[in-house]
Amino acid sequence: MSDLLETVRTLAKKTDSKILMVVLDGIGGLPLTLNGETELATAKTPNLDALARDSQLGLVELVGAGITPGSGPGHLSLFGYDPLKYVVGRGALSAVGIGVKLGAGDVAVRGNFATLGQGRVVDDRRAGRPSDEKNAEIVARLRAAIPEIDGTPVEIYTESEHRFVVVFRAGGGPALGANISDVDPQATGVQPLSAEPHDDASARTAGLVNAFVQRAEAALQGEEQVNGVLFRGYSDVPHFPSFDDAYGLRAACIASYPMYKGLASLVGMDVLPVEGHEDALEGKVAALREHWENYDFFYFHVKKTDSTGEDGDFAEKVHKIELFDELLPQLLALKPDVLAIVGDHSTPSKLLSHSWHPVPLLIRAEHGRKDMAARYTEEEAQKGSLGLRRGTDLMPLLMANALKLNKYGA
Amino acid sequence: MSDLLETVRTLAKKTDSKILMVVLDGIGGLPLTLNGETELATAKTPNLDALARDSQLGLVELVGAGITPGSGPGHLSLFGYDPLKYVVGRGALSAVGIGVKLGAGDVAVRGNFATLGQGRVVDDRRAGRPSDEKNAEIVARLRAAIPEIDGTPVEIYTESEHRFVVVFRAGGGPALGANISDVDPQATGVQPLSAEPHDDASARTAGLVNAFVQRAEAALQGEEQVNGVLFRGYSDVPHFPSFDDAYGLRAACIASYPMYKGLASLVGMDVLPVEGHEDALEGKVAALREHWENYDFFYFHVKKTDSTGEDGDFAEKVHKIELFDELLPQLLALKPDVLAIVGDHSTPSKLLSHSWHPVPLLIRAEHGRKDMAARYTEEEAQKGSLGLRRGTDLMPLLMANALKLNKYGA
Repeated sequence: MSDLLETVRTLAKKTDSKILMVVLDGIGGLPLTLNGETELATAKTPNLDALARDSQLGLVELVGAGITPGSGPGHLSLFGYDPLKYVVGRGALSAVGIGVKLGAGDVAVRGNFATLGQGRVVDDRRAGRPSDEKNAEIVARLRAAIPEIDGTPVEIYTESEHRFVVVFRAGGGPALGANISDVDPQATGVQPLSAEPHDDASARTAGLVNAFVQRAEAALQGEEQVNGVLFRGYSDVPHFPSFDDAYGLRAACIASYPMYKGLASLVGMDVLPVEGHEDALEGKVAALREHWENYDFFYFHVKKTDSTGEDGDFAEKVHKIELFDELLPQLLALKPDVLAIVGDHSTPSKLLSHSWHPVPLLIRAEHGRKDMAARYTEEEAQKGSLGLRRGTDLMPLLMANALKLNKYGA
Repeated sequence: MSDLLETVRTLAKKTDSKILMVVLDGIGGLPLTLNGETELATAKTPNLDALARDSQLGLVELVGAGITPGSGPGHLSLFGYDPLKYVVGRGALSAVGIGVKLGAGDVAVRGNFATLGQGRVVDDRRAGRPSDEKNAEIVARLRAAIPEIDGTPVEIYTESEHRFVVVFRAGGGPALGANISDVDPQATGVQPLSAEPHDDASARTAGLVNAFVQRAEAALQGEEQVNGVLFRGYSDVPHFPSFDDAYGLRAACIASYPMYKGLASLVGMDVLPVEGHEDALEGKVAALREHWENYDFFYFHVKKTDSTGEDGDFAEKVHKIELFDELLPQLLALKPDVLAIVGDHSTPSKLLSHSWHPVPLLIRAEHGRKDMAARYTEEEAQKGSLGLRRGTDLMPLLMANALKLNKYGA
């Protein structure tokens, strides 16, 4: 947490008011041509427009000026945890991203399948980028070959292409350290490195990693391309104050993709079941309605605004925004005391990727000032009374607007 | 001080220019209905309007996003001291609030009168909330009974109802520590606790507190309700760099309520005498005029804009704003080189309390840019060239506009 949020933690009080944070993934955009309109400005959004006229708007930078946030840091910022301070390691983020929960003392490791040639030297650090199906087939063989090492349970998961994740479970035993050197030499023509521990707590982990490398190569003997493994990015479980601890909130996550459910569970939210496929917007609304009385805070995630931007499909991103607009009245019907609409980063279809551009923020609450923004768009948000802020300001603002914060000092 | 102000301190230079900081307490407001007008926007303020057209405007958050400042943190921020770093303890703030000065090595303690029953157990931690008059009568008895303890001078003051303040004076002796445990058990049905020191410097203070408890109970024997004392919140003098040290400014405070005079004296301002009752605006202007040649910096405090907000009286807050507007030409006639108009927090009459909403800031100085704000209101201030800032930015801006800061670096 930022220093500000250490203060928020001491001021938080429980009330009956409810906060709904809608995260439109990658919502911020760019015009395709100079001085043109963004996806948000192009979309026909009568419901959002009406909401914006009764709301306060602004812009948020999730990590900092010019920094393009990954989904992890973007969400941590929205949840109030300074993403420059609370770093989720690559291994843990990969595990979270495929929906694998980490327990205290466990270690998650990111692996690459590789091609090893004569003399065990690395010929290809990505094993010719195998298909996801091939990856899954190899993972199945490794699972059969390496269910445990010296009594330590080992779990192996497909990520995509040449990427996989290994979780070493501490079980009831002592915590596994994550402070060990890489197996990946980050070069071809040389052998994989031996993992060395940098502290006592990581000695056992280094032994497990080296044994895994050896047993995996044995199990994959005869494979043409996928016959070796390289590791880098070891992580133990990140230590976050929970949402309950930081804000005194009973918080629930309504999302359908593993990464977002994983991030929410990292901060202690209950992950609610959602019916339906892919973005499952109607299923999400149903889940929200069903659990409305049981929580103080809801994180409601919409994915397709990001995916269409990543695809570079301007028209389709506009369409996904319009679909959310059609859904909005169902959210408003629940009468949240405080409603925020925001994104975890921008994903302009012009760039086919996440970007650094600030994201429009809307807050609808009882005790707000009038502001001059007339729509929920990047341009109108500049006129908003909330100004341009860091993403970590959002949670204190939502807590304040929900009247859940005591005064600071006399 | 914030890191910025450590730098300001190294750059400060003395010049003949004069800075006038007008603090309209609790000036920020809210509309009573969605998209309505605030108190400031409702008020007829021809003088402020004309001034705003020649000034630069912006908005300040005194502590941070969503944080509702108490008067102490709000003023510390305006004076340039980061209120998350410079914390004034409850005992010291109570002493300051009733106008008692603390010297180096003194300790101030907040006390509650309590009702003790059979076996010295606490029956009521607030002694049935006695009247202020009863409080004063009890304090007079304790003053007579406990003028000193083992040679340490003891001062006792009424705060209100069950609350009182004790100051143990170090005199010429070694500093008294404030790191001791509470006497208040924060429960009924149990005896008051014995104060225990947490460090060597506080051992003598703990002994004084325990002796005070014993002698107070003896002195109050026979009283039905007010027959015991409980203590919590011990503070030594907060260590602030003075205004002179931080800015090289000869600074004066023009205020009429003890809390504000106390806060100004904490940072080393001279507190000027003010003739008149309550807010005494005319007396304040007279004091300003009289001492105009003797200081570089004036803190001019207006209280009623806050009190009317706390009372929930929208129309009366509007009226107090209009009264200040009538006074404004007298301030302008003194031709301050730099004039700031700001608040220490918002106090919307809609909320009957302080709030987290940013406060409009106006700076009138010779070397300012044109900006688009046409009035000193929350809404217009959003258009101002000063943007949305932390309160601790104000003093560096005033120093710069007064041409009292050297260049940083070559």
